[in-house]
Formats: sequence, structure tokens, C-alpha cells
Amino acid sequence: MNNKDEFFMQKAIQLAGRKRYKNKPEPLAGAVLVKGDQIIAQGYQKTNAEPHAVSQVLYNLAPEQESTIYTNIEPCFSPENNFSCAKMLVQKGIKRCVIGTLNPAPEINGKSIAYLKAQGVEVTFGVLEEKCRQLNIFYFKYTQTGLPFVTVKYAQSLDGRLATATGQSQWISSGSSLRLAHQLRSIHDGILIGIGTLLKDNPRLTVRLVKGTSPWRIIVDTSLKIPLTANVLNDEHIKKTIIVTTKVAEKKKMAAIEKRGAKILKINQDPQGQVDLREAFFRLGRIGIHSVMVEGGAKMITSLLKNKLFDRLVITIAPKIIGQGIEAVGELGVKELKEAIKFNRIRFKKMGADLIFEGEPVNQTWKV
Amino acid sequence: MNNKDEFFMQKAIQLAGRKRYKNKPEPLAGAVLVKGDQIIAQGYQKTNAEPHAVSQVLYNLAPEQESTIYTNIEPCFSPENNFSCAKMLVQKGIKRCVIGTLNPAPEINGKSIAYLKAQGVEVTFGVLEEKCRQLNIFYFKYTQTGLPFVTVKYAQSLDGRLATATGQSQWISSGSSLRLAHQLRSIHDGILIGIGTLLKDNPRLTVRLVKGTSPWRIIVDTSLKIPLTANVLNDEHIKKTIIVTTKVAEKKKMAAIEKRGAKILKINQDPQGQVDLREAFFRLGRIGIHSVMVEGGAKMITSLLKNKLFDRLVITIAPKIIGQGIEAVGELGVKELKEAIKFNRIRFKKMGADLIFEGEPVNQTWKV
Repeated sequence: MNNKDEFFMQKAIQLAGRKRYKNKPEPLAGAVLVKGDQIIAQGYQKTNAEPHAVSQVLYNLAPEQESTIYTNIEPCFSPENNFSCAKMLVQKGIKRCVIGTLNPAPEINGKSIAYLKAQGVEVTFGVLEEKCRQLNIFYFKYTQTGLPFVTVKYAQSLDGRLATATGQSQWISSGSSLRLAHQLRSIHDGILIGIGTLLKDNPRLTVRLVKGTSPWRIIVDTSLKIPLTANVLNDEHIKKTIIVTTKVAEKKKMAAIEKRGAKILKINQDPQGQVDLREAFFRLGRIGIHSVMVEGGAKMITSLLKNKLFDRLVITIAPKIIGQGIEAVGELGVKELKEAIKFNRIRFKKMGADLIFEGEPVNQTWKV
Repeated sequence: MNNKDEFFMQKAIQLAGRKRYKNKPEPLAGAVLVKGDQIIAQGYQKTNAEPHAVSQVLYNLAPEQESTIYTNIEPCFSPENNFSCAKMLVQKGIKRCVIGTLNPAPEINGKSIAYLKAQGVEVTFGVLEEKCRQLNIFYFKYTQTGLPFVTVKYAQSLDGRLATATGQSQWISSGSSLRLAHQLRSIHDGILIGIGTLLKDNPRLTVRLVKGTSPWRIIVDTSLKIPLTANVLNDEHIKKTIIVTTKVAEKKKMAAIEKRGAKILKINQDPQGQVDLREAFFRLGRIGIHSVMVEGGAKMITSLLKNKLFDRLVITIAPKIIGQGIEAVGELGVKELKEAIKFNRIRFKKMGADLIFEGEPVNQTWKV
């Protein structure tokens, strides 16, 4: 690995990042072909119907003996398919292949690299690995576990309150932080809230302040309290509404909701009688949801934090103090400080008057 | 005002800032004498025994017709005293005087500027005024109100907790933030804590991690629960210990504490039966304490925030989540968000793994 490798890998990451990873079975991928110090071809997969990045770059090219190809993720490989990226790369006589991360899909996961080496291609692995991992973090989580990547996002005061005791929370944070919330919505496959938040705010859970497809709206609602008049059951995105409930839900109401076009997921109850969130995420993964953004409320946040059912936390901290009110995080059962939730990849950044905290909890076990 | 003025004013501020404002009856002052674009003399008051900055710079100088003097605070003035800075300035024939802020001392407060103008000196006022105000913020508060400037400082988790439910709070924040706490201690005349914190931690409240004089240790202790074995009653700084109590305190214990050399301040009770903090600050001001840093605990913090008895808030936010535990800020009586405490001069800065928030509450009424 050297500075030149990092430079061209950064270019491949940029190309890959031109797309959003959204409901995709394929990871984001970019490829850059370099001869000497010159980029002679580059590409990325714009739609799932297009060839993969590496194949795209090489397909129309004459064999290239002296060149190096850079790609953020291990090229695809299949012993039977001569058009797989790894085979194409060998056919075109590429001398060296520089790769950011493995592709954890079971049919690839290192097999592609082994094939390239066996065919005499020089392989350099792990260039800007962490950046490449972050780029496809939803893909990695989903591919390795079948579970969606879960981002928990909320806005709080300096003293950790979501709202005043009377529940007032509108505009706790500034305009630019609201934009951030909508941007996060636009990159996740689904937005999830608890029924308490729905009953209080009746949100639409669509992407408005930025461009992007509207995500699945997922309401966790143990005893199906959702009113049939709720916004998410009455707009043009009804088919993108999922109500996660349990066997205590009234059957007639379930049927009425399904008839409107929304989806019902019936899940087991956890020991507290609530929707078993672990199972809920598993089921959401099964219907192809790779990433979920959780927007509240306090009970949902506390439950996910307590049960370590989240992969990233994003907190907008508004420079205000509310005092006793609705606290973002309730009882976690932490007795000693060493049991507190700690974070990796911590970022603090200013946004308007607010501060954004981002971190991933330590001890995630599904890492690539 | 122009860039040149700001440049030389910045120099005057730097000179003034070489000293700490600590138990001082005089504001921090620096002066820079400029001819053309050249600094021809500069100075600041190193000890209270020395002449003021302006006089110091001019005293040994031959009359200077074409020069400009820059000083962060209005020069001192007294009609009777020919060695006052303003008179000296006129005697030396200085053409122009550039001033950052007024000096709010009743005998000066604009009179010096009026005198200079009447004597034909060209006066430019308000250059880098806010910076100059911040430099002498303790002096301004004390001079204008007789009350100490109150900084509230604590370390919390992201979710606003000081400690776990079992009270464990040691090392909530990182080493560099602890250094900050000691640095703040070193610039304030006094450190104040509630008796709860003393009983829990038995702190020494001295300046250790940085250089600086140890401050007054002020313990707010309504019913004189402090044990005679407490560190602050048994070390070499005993004469710098003040116990703020009320008439419910046991007289014999008061006498015993005073006999050791500590000070007792007997204050009225507020409607809740606690030490009336407003009166306490007034009395602390009367014994010459210009600035107080409050270090906890939660009850003290909440009381000061609720009663708007603070001038600056400094929070170290550690990137951890504790969940239900000891919350930094309790009930403030905020019903609607617009009643939340808001801040001016907000600063967020990273320090080690932690984030530091600093702000001054809006609606301070004593401003210069």
C-alpha cells in the first residue's frame, strides 16, 4: 500500500458513492483502471441492471498488460460465469488488482481474491479499508446477518431531554438539523417509530427536505392501537407502511389495515409483553429491508440501547436546557460506569446552532 | 475602526492577558503605543503595585505628537491625580486613543473618554469590544453588581447523567477534561460545591493539574452537616475554606470550625429552607470574591440554573450513555420549550474523547 494506491482508491470510493445504497442486493462499487500514473478508464454500477463496476470498465477495452485496477470491494466471482468481474479481469490481462474490502457474500468472500492470485494477478488488499467498509456498511450488516443496519436518531437538549414534561418537542433543534434527519431518512430503506410517537405526532415519515425515495414506514405497535385515520394509513405511500404487532392485536383491525394496502408483521412478544424487536428486525430483513432509521420515541430508543439492537447512534444536541421532562434514554440497568454504552468512530460536528454526535457502539460482533 | 486598529488592539489584549484576573481590584489592561505602523512602546500591569498599563508605557517617554495608543479598557482618570492614565496621555501629547471597552468603575465609566475628547485627543471606541469584554468579564460583573461571576461546570454523559444510579461518577470524562477543570479552578477566586458532593467525594478542591494559586473553597451546607474530618477542614489551606450555612446550624460546631481558621457565613434561608444562594453570592462578593466556579452536585446545579444565578455554563460531555442515574439538571419548571434555558456565545470544542460545551445564558442584565 502507498499514497498512490490510496489516491486511486479514493477515486473508486467517490465513483461508488455517486449512488445511494438503497434496497440494493448489490454493494456500491466503483472501479478505476490506471496505467502508469494515468486513469485510462473508470466506472460504477448505476443501476442493478448494468454490469458491475469492474466489468463495465474492462468490457470494451483491449487487453491491458501493464495496468492496475482499483476497486473498493472484492470483485464478483463465479466459476461458471465468464463475465464475472474476476474472470474478466484475468481475461484482459490486468497485472494488479487493488481491493478495499472483502465482499462478504458467501459465493465471493475471499474466493475471488484466491482466484485472482491463482491466475497470477498481483493482489493488494485493504487499501482505505475502513472508508470502504463505511461506504457499504448497510450491505455488510445485511449480508453477514440477514438483519438491517439500525441507525437510532434523535434530537435532545444538552441535558438529554427529548421534550418538556408536557411533551412539547417541536423545533427542539434547528432547521439544518431537520434537514439532516430528512437526509438520513433518504438513505435508509425504512424509518421506524414506536406507536407512542405516532399517537403523539401523527408523522408522515416521508422524505421532504431533500431529494430521495420515500422509505418504508415501520410502526411498532404491540396491541395495534394505531387509529385508522393515521397519516401513514391514508396517503399515497400506504403500500410502504408496515405495522409490526403481536397476537394481542384485534384481528378485524389487522384485516382492515391490510385491505388498505399496508403490511402487517405479526411478531412474538418479548418477556415484557412488547413486540420482540430482535425478531422484528429479522422479519424486516427477510422482506428485503437492509437499513432502518429509528426516530423515537423514548421507550423505543431505550429498548434498542438496552438490548444493543442498534449499529449507529446519531444525536442532535440543541444548545438548550429543559430540565426535568421526557428523557431520551431511560433505565438501561447500568450500575457501574464501565457498563455504560461506549462508542467507536465518534464524530462531533456542528450543524447550525446544534451539535451532531455520531458513534457506533463498541462490541458489534458482525464486523467484516 | 479598521484592520490596523484591530491588529494593535489584539496586541494590547494579548499583553493584558499575560496576567490572570484573580482577586484583583483592577481590570486586566495592556497598552500599545504606535507611530506610523510601528509599535514604539508596550506594557501591561504585572502586579497591582505597578503603574497602570497606559501610564507605564508613557511615563519615561518624551512627548509624542503623532502617535496612537491602544488599550483594551478605558484608561483610568481622576481630576485630582496628575498621574492618572488619561492625564498622562494628554500631557504626553498623544494624538489618538483607541479603546476596547468602558471601565465601569463609577469614578471612570466614560468620564475618562469625555476628558480625553475635551482635551483634543481623538478617541476611537469599541474596537474588538466583545473580546475586550470577555477578557475582563469577572471584573465587569463584580464592578457592576458587587456579585461574583458564576461559572457552573460539570461533566456528564451524552444522556445528561452525572453518575450511575449508584453514584459512580469517577472518570466519567477523560484526562484532558480533568485538566480543563483544574485550569478553570485556577482562574476563579473560589470553587463552590454543595454539602452532598462534599459528603460523597470529600474533595480537596485545590488546583493540582495546572499551575495556579489555590482558590477559596466554598461549601454550601444549610444545616452544617460537614464532618470535622473533611479534607477542606484539615489541610494547609484551611484559611481558604468558607462554610456557607444558616441559623439552623449547631453553634458549637460553627465555633469549632471557625477556631480551626475556616470562615463561616451565616445566611438567611430561602423559602425551601435552604441557604439563600442569591444572598450567599452577595456576601461572597463583599469579602472580595470576584468569581466562583461551581462544581456540583446535581441539586446545586439545578438550583442555580432554575434561579438564573449563573453567568457561564461549561459542560464536559463524555461520549457514553449511562441511562437512568443521577441527572445533572433536575426540575426547572419549564413547561414550554420557549421557557428552556438558551445560550449566547455558544462554543463546542473537542477535548480528548470528550466534547466541551460553553455558553452564557441569554438575558443577563448586568452587561456593560
